[in-house]
Amino acid sequence: MQEIKEYIEQHKPRFLEELFALLRFPSVSADPKYKGDVLKTAEFVASKLAEAGADLVEVCPTAGYPIVYGEKLIDSSLPTVLVYGHYDVQPPDPLELWDTPPFEPTVRDGKIFARGACDDKGQFYMHIKAFETMMSTQQLPCNIKFMIEGEEEVGSDNLGQFVKDNKARLQADVVLISDTSMISMENPSLETGLRGLAYMEVEVVGPNRDLHSGVYGGAVANPATILCQMIASLHDENNHVTIPGFYDGVIELSDAEKQALNAAPFDLDEYKKDLAVDDVWGEKGYSTLERTGTRPTLEVNGIWGGYTGPGAKTVLPSKAEAKISMRLVPGQDWQRISDLFKNHFESIAPKSVKVKVTAHHGGMPYVTPVDSVAFKAAFKAIEESFGKAPVPTRGGGSIPIVALFEQELNIKTVLMGFGLDSDNLHSPNEKYDIYNYYKGIETIPLFFKHFADLSK
Amino acid sequence: MQEIKEYIEQHKPRFLEELFALLRFPSVSADPKYKGDVLKTAEFVASKLAEAGADLVEVCPTAGYPIVYGEKLIDSSLPTVLVYGHYDVQPPDPLELWDTPPFEPTVRDGKIFARGACDDKGQFYMHIKAFETMMSTQQLPCNIKFMIEGEEEVGSDNLGQFVKDNKARLQADVVLISDTSMISMENPSLETGLRGLAYMEVEVVGPNRDLHSGVYGGAVANPATILCQMIASLHDENNHVTIPGFYDGVIELSDAEKQALNAAPFDLDEYKKDLAVDDVWGEKGYSTLERTGTRPTLEVNGIWGGYTGPGAKTVLPSKAEAKISMRLVPGQDWQRISDLFKNHFESIAPKSVKVKVTAHHGGMPYVTPVDSVAFKAAFKAIEESFGKAPVPTRGGGSIPIVALFEQELNIKTVLMGFGLDSDNLHSPNEKYDIYNYYKGIETIPLFFKHFADLSK
Repeated sequence: MQEIKEYIEQHKPRFLEELFALLRFPSVSADPKYKGDVLKTAEFVASKLAEAGADLVEVCPTAGYPIVYGEKLIDSSLPTVLVYGHYDVQPPDPLELWDTPPFEPTVRDGKIFARGACDDKGQFYMHIKAFETMMSTQQLPCNIKFMIEGEEEVGSDNLGQFVKDNKARLQADVVLISDTSMISMENPSLETGLRGLAYMEVEVVGPNRDLHSGVYGGAVANPATILCQMIASLHDENNHVTIPGFYDGVIELSDAEKQALNAAPFDLDEYKKDLAVDDVWGEKGYSTLERTGTRPTLEVNGIWGGYTGPGAKTVLPSKAEAKISMRLVPGQDWQRISDLFKNHFESIAPKSVKVKVTAHHGGMPYVTPVDSVAFKAAFKAIEESFGKAPVPTRGGGSIPIVALFEQELNIKTVLMGFGLDSDNLHSPNEKYDIYNYYKGIETIPLFFKHFADLSK
Repeated sequence: MQEIKEYIEQHKPRFLEELFALLRFPSVSADPKYKGDVLKTAEFVASKLAEAGADLVEVCPTAGYPIVYGEKLIDSSLPTVLVYGHYDVQPPDPLELWDTPPFEPTVRDGKIFARGACDDKGQFYMHIKAFETMMSTQQLPCNIKFMIEGEEEVGSDNLGQFVKDNKARLQADVVLISDTSMISMENPSLETGLRGLAYMEVEVVGPNRDLHSGVYGGAVANPATILCQMIASLHDENNHVTIPGFYDGVIELSDAEKQALNAAPFDLDEYKKDLAVDDVWGEKGYSTLERTGTRPTLEVNGIWGGYTGPGAKTVLPSKAEAKISMRLVPGQDWQRISDLFKNHFESIAPKSVKVKVTAHHGGMPYVTPVDSVAFKAAFKAIEESFGKAPVPTRGGGSIPIVALFEQELNIKTVLMGFGLDSDNLHSPNEKYDIYNYYKGIETIPLFFKHFADLSK
């Protein structure tokens, strides 16, 4: 591995410059106005894959944004690793809260600030650079396949079809993904689970026009008020979700599992301090780590209605809307939950308003096995490069594709993420530590080495 | 009065053109970006007052937008009428719901569509044209003073000081205002009351940044969810406002008053049909006319927080905000209600969020005497020009200045409005019927005649 270390050391400046070039593309998949940029990003990723030494590099069209594929098959008797990542990013707004422009990567005390720095450009690009390193040093011990998509942040709507259509091409022994976090660089960890997601949009419509709140106020249902009442009713006083059937099938952790989970280094005071909140919030009877890692949730991601400009407008709005998403855990099916939400939300609407509910997208929850060759290889790789055994953790996020891989390709996934919870994913000033970026590039070849060895 | 009729008939086209010119100024007082236009509007109004024959026309500076003053004092032994109106308008948004541009007046089946067509440009300009008519026909029977302000839609913050500083100049026997509605042209009415107003803005702040709803969801209070819960708690299951002390001092109508109020022509099915709602909403135990005319209310005028763009963003927002206003009735003091709201709203905030409450502005409720000379004159004027006695009604809107006049100048007000509830005040496609505009110009001189006669 000495050669690999040296090669990385030698090329660090270029590895960073290339990531910056990638981060300069505003590849926001949620907003159509960025379409041209998203497509350019795919082309850029493909060119870098080819430069790194991949064969059959292809920008594969889909009904939405293309999927970038590339592979290097060295020996059919060796195990094959399928690397998944996504080149699309979350919308950057609220823009005014960024200290530096979201699409002009800026380094401050060792951290790269840019939308996508960690999620997921910085993390999937580590794999391309690790691949380049293994190729250039003739130390690639496995076959490798890359599948980098452009719709992860909007629900991977077209990836399912692509996977179904390309089962042969995508065959592999493990899916390797770096799109999650570690507790810290001092406390490396390895995620063993992801939450599923059901994302809904609701519209509450009252009168057919905005009304004068003096002339009509108090006599006509105010959709903003009604929407608030409906949303408020979705949690009870213990912050349990009230949608009938919501918890059906949810698997409670055993006391042993709870103990292991809560054994992870976690400082509640630090957590509150970092977020500047006086108190945490959540489902009664569960710890913070249990709430994010093992419990389903319901969150308002956005709400709007009426006059939101400066000053005062005495209007009774015609409608009010909200984006509401639910994180799901093993035992919950995202389509069933979407239906339960829709039926419930429509059923609680008073006669004085009309309600429209649309499902945006979703994904299934997933739990990775901890006894697989691949998990052990990741464990050893991290232990070796960090000099400390990783703590198994349950992540609160969702990568819908993971469950799909298992279902369609029957391949297990390893979640070897190098981000931090404090990286401001989906927030202004998203960042990724340069240290973590290089650490990832160093660790990935170790995974390949151990995976090849343990697979023998 | 024949000459007056003829003069109006003769100049109708010009009267309309001048109103159009006035409506083309986007005099939105709430939004600083229109500042230049608001100031131009004041100049325009002043020039028209002078042209109509007013003396001492002045654009009086204030800490905010100027107040246009003008007068014609013909004989100190005659009664004096102080005409109040406002040249500022509500913001036009949501712009996409306008069928024609808000500041390009357009006539469709006899109606003028434009922001301010009815509220209040169309209505106060009737007085300037009626004044011109009385002057040109040598039939002005009273002294007249005009005070047209530019901040009514944002709470008349600087009018109070102006009135205090100009008590002598503003002395009059009655304040005449056309800024309210009639039931219909077939059922003329005369408003005898106005609701007060307390307008608040609230901000609920959770974590110090937008968070990934997967990584933190379920473990950190979501300000949008909390705001909804707090707003929902402001009404009980009978739609009574739950703020402690909110109803203190509210005067219940006597059965006789209720009967008179509910005797006004009102068709609930028509009302629902016009608004396209399946059911009305409101405080249990009161009719629709009682709810808007005699009961205090609490309305959400606007709400916003989190991601409101296209598609899905899985964010747990850092904060959520709302504009909330309350309409007040006799017995309620707007400053006291603002304080009650602030204290209550802050008191119900959970420890997991921080709450900021600011009072925008307010005004006192008002009930006009129905036995005054001025009220009788207005009654007779309407009866004469409409050929039908007006029905006394209680309006739901607010004109904060009315209570101020009484307090500072000790002058009663007559609310002789010619608008319709269906004029879309504060809404897209605000309109004013050309018929009503001319009808008003014909009726106003009758008021002056009767007021002069009855005052003898």
